[in-house]
Amino acid sequence: MKLKEIAEMAGGKIVGDETLEVVGVRGVEDASSGHVTYLAGKQYLEALKQSKASAVLVEAVVDLDMTQIVVPNPALAFAKLLAFFHPQKRSKPGVDSRAVIGDNVRLGKNVTLSPFVCLGDNVVLGDNCVLYPGVFVGDDCVIGDDCLFYSNVTLYPETRVGNHVVLHSGAVIGADGFGYTLDEAGRHFKIPQIGTVKLEDHVEVGANSCIDRANLGVTLVREGTKIDNLVQIGHNCAIGPHSIIVSQAGIAGSCQLGSYVVIGGQVGIADHLKIGDKAMLMSQAGVARDVPDGAIEGGSPSLPRKEYGRLVALSHKLPEMAKRIKELEKRLDEIEK
Amino acid sequence: MKLKEIAEMAGGKIVGDETLEVVGVRGVEDASSGHVTYLAGKQYLEALKQSKASAVLVEAVVDLDMTQIVVPNPALAFAKLLAFFHPQKRSKPGVDSRAVIGDNVRLGKNVTLSPFVCLGDNVVLGDNCVLYPGVFVGDDCVIGDDCLFYSNVTLYPETRVGNHVVLHSGAVIGADGFGYTLDEAGRHFKIPQIGTVKLEDHVEVGANSCIDRANLGVTLVREGTKIDNLVQIGHNCAIGPHSIIVSQAGIAGSCQLGSYVVIGGQVGIADHLKIGDKAMLMSQAGVARDVPDGAIEGGSPSLPRKEYGRLVALSHKLPEMAKRIKELEKRLDEIEK
Amino acid sequence: MKLKEIAEMAGGKIVGDETLEVVGVRGVEDASSGHVTYLAGKQYLEALKQSKASAVLVEAVVDLDMTQIVVPNPALAFAKLLAFFHPQKRSKPGVDSRAVIGDNVRLGKNVTLSPFVCLGDNVVLGDNCVLYPGVFVGDDCVIGDDCLFYSNVTLYPETRVGNHVVLHSGAVIGADGFGYTLDEAGRHFKIPQIGTVKLEDHVEVGANSCIDRANLGVTLVREGTKIDNLVQIGHNCAIGPHSIIVSQAGIAGSCQLGSYVVIGGQVGIADHLKIGDKAMLMSQAGVARDVPDGAIEGGSPSLPRKEYGRLVALSHKLPEMAKRIKELEKRLDEIEK
Repeated sequence: MKLKEIAEMAGGKIVGDETLEVVGVRGVEDASSGHVTYLAGKQYLEALKQSKASAVLVEAVVDLDMTQIVVPNPALAFAKLLAFFHPQKRSKPGVDSRAVIGDNVRLGKNVTLSPFVCLGDNVVLGDNCVLYPGVFVGDDCVIGDDCLFYSNVTLYPETRVGNHVVLHSGAVIGADGFGYTLDEAGRHFKIPQIGTVKLEDHVEVGANSCIDRANLGVTLVREGTKIDNLVQIGHNCAIGPHSIIVSQAGIAGSCQLGSYVVIGGQVGIADHLKIGDKAMLMSQAGVARDVPDGAIEGGSPSLPRKEYGRLVALSHKLPEMAKRIKELEKRLDEIEK
Repeated sequence: MKLKEIAEMAGGKIVGDETLEVVGVRGVEDASSGHVTYLAGKQYLEALKQSKASAVLVEAVVDLDMTQIVVPNPALAFAKLLAFFHPQKRSKPGVDSRAVIGDNVRLGKNVTLSPFVCLGDNVVLGDNCVLYPGVFVGDDCVIGDDCLFYSNVTLYPETRVGNHVVLHSGAVIGADGFGYTLDEAGRHFKIPQIGTVKLEDHVEVGANSCIDRANLGVTLVREGTKIDNLVQIGHNCAIGPHSIIVSQAGIAGSCQLGSYVVIGGQVGIADHLKIGDKAMLMSQAGVARDVPDGAIEGGSPSLPRKEYGRLVALSHKLPEMAKRIKELEKRLDEIEK
Repeated sequence: MKLKEIAEMAGGKIVGDETLEVVGVRGVEDASSGHVTYLAGKQYLEALKQSKASAVLVEAVVDLDMTQIVVPNPALAFAKLLAFFHPQKRSKPGVDSRAVIGDNVRLGKNVTLSPFVCLGDNVVLGDNCVLYPGVFVGDDCVIGDDCLFYSNVTLYPETRVGNHVVLHSGAVIGADGFGYTLDEAGRHFKIPQIGTVKLEDHVEVGANSCIDRANLGVTLVREGTKIDNLVQIGHNCAIGPHSIIVSQAGIAGSCQLGSYVVIGGQVGIADHLKIGDKAMLMSQAGVARDVPDGAIEGGSPSLPRKEYGRLVALSHKLPEMAKRIKELEKRLDEIEK
């Protein structure tokens, strides 16, 4: 491909040789001749100078002897070129003879059912869905178009999934919420979890993550929300749209998360809390009360970012503070004598 | 059904119209005409006043123009009615031709072996067990009656499981404990994990949770203990009976947990510790020493709840304390001059 | 077996009756007549005195009326004897007719492919590998000799695995790294994760752990590194050799861990950090900056062990410090009057 075609695709303007022959896209350090790379920020300019790339996506022309493509968002343009040069390999469509299909199942066009996939009764599966080996879809699930479920994904019965949803291996959608009440004999009596889970369009769920079905009603993950690996989402939560939940975060039951929320790794959120739009929770935060729109909180129990930062800094001064208190006491003793 | 029958089932007394026709049970907000709901606590009375439910389970009569059923424990009565109106769907019993059964396996009556279930040699499986697709049961496992294993559950060889045990999708029971010792060449030499796991009656294990086999001896989860998703239980632990372990908690090797212990979400417990009966560990606690019976601890490293609460409160006053120390120093400087 | 043979195997010297008949090895408490046990440290001498074992592995002769085998490293010798007396049961080699093998697959000698194993196209699998039921190996994976993959392990396409690698049930190797960038419409646009994962020789990965494929390049786990259950390793990390990562730890993208690093349970490490050789991170540490070689750190945000210990101790004195400040203020008030 010519660089000119690349620039058109990226919606950018070439500063340099537009007849360059492009063979692919690569990171700054791995790029060699024929590769297009990108400048993620000024701090990478030195590394870029060492790069063997033939051209670079930039936000504004930089002082560099390399052909440049000026685009509004180099990271986005680069991601799109990556997707273009490395299209997702799609398994050949078709229903393998070793897949099991329940009664009254409706399959869309062009679906891939790998060996050892198992669809329960009354399942609806949209067009172009790809199900890898070992996927289990329980009775009465409804799945939209263009979904991609990797190996050993489980959907419990009645789960609803929108379009363009990606579930990574081992993700479990719709297992029972964790609810018990003590019975007369002092045993934990299971509260039936008769609700469901709904994942809206463009949701992605990481490997071995768990989203529990609602006790009553629905656990909802709204459009465009992206969930990393090993995340726990409790029953009756409503999350997103367009939120980001990083690995090993845990969200207890009945939480409401707004739009564009960012939950850091290993964050824990207690039950029944409301996390406002565009709120951010720093890694390992422990959240025990509502978080307002746009707030950034850290620590356990969590505090607004500035307060948290001040407390951490002051806690590091505890030895000094202890010393100063001792000193004050001595001086006072002296005076009082 | 008539409300009278419901009241009998719940062991309650009707205050109001006992001829009401009941079509189901629902939460306060979702209920409509014909539904029975319940009052979880006085704080929900306002919400109940807005509810369209036809009757409500209460602990004591409340001032409300709605038929009431007075029961000793409304939450329990409600859970039981839920279970009655929404019985667990049981797959048709039978051994699917695509299930694999090893040599010398003993199957109880009325079992369900779904497609792609795999039972190793010498497995014993009790009556009425239901195994979903992709369940793997290793050689020499012994499983009691009325167990329910969801898709892709793994039991390593020699695991023992009691009656009425529920294992959610992706749970792994009996993987090797994590133990190595450095060899002469400075490599990690694996300490063989030749023990087993035993799950007693009425244990429930959440999705993608892991309970490791013992090094020597047995990792034991006692009767009625309920474990949430993504929990780690190390080798040689003994847990329960009737304990609750919330999602993403991790219990290192050789811990002893008593009865009715409650472990919050993301709690970490170091190895070889003893957690007393009815102890409670708050979410994200990090436990590094034994916890006595009935204690409630929080924080990392954990402290008794009151101390922990005081420290959190005082830590929030660190900026003020720093200021006051500075002020004292100034005043003393002034005096000393 | 005679004790003499055991001693030779362990490279040790017998002090006592070398004609003893040995039937097995056991822990101090569980041992009975005919068993060899070991002394893990002087603190277990009392327990050893109660033991019914016939002989004991010791580092140096102890004052005890029991036959002793003096070895340089009793724990290692004991582990080796355990492995000798309890050899890993190997499934019979052979390719089950219910395993699925893609096009152009190269199988080594003596492999075990259990039912419901699925190998993609172009997979290379070395000699003596054992794959349990439900293992999925994506296209173009290359796997060395003597590997052991338990049930429901997933390898995404192009994963490279060395020799003697053990993957426990539910481990997911090579799922997409977690990377998005906002597009023009404010949606999370997926950054294609076109890199791979490489696991070197003697790596072991615990149940339900996840190691993500690189964005570009490779996520690397070096020789002899041992990873516990439910661990998350982000894209583009390079870890080891000979490191230990305990359960539920999470390592964000692009981290570099040195050799013989020990990461405690539930530790979180932010992205792009460097953890030096032989560094140790205490359980639940939250690491937000590089850790030098040999350092031991704890706390969140983490500090060198001594500082962390001092801060914890001082934080426990906060109530006292608050009181002393108040006292000082009173005394000063008095003086100023």
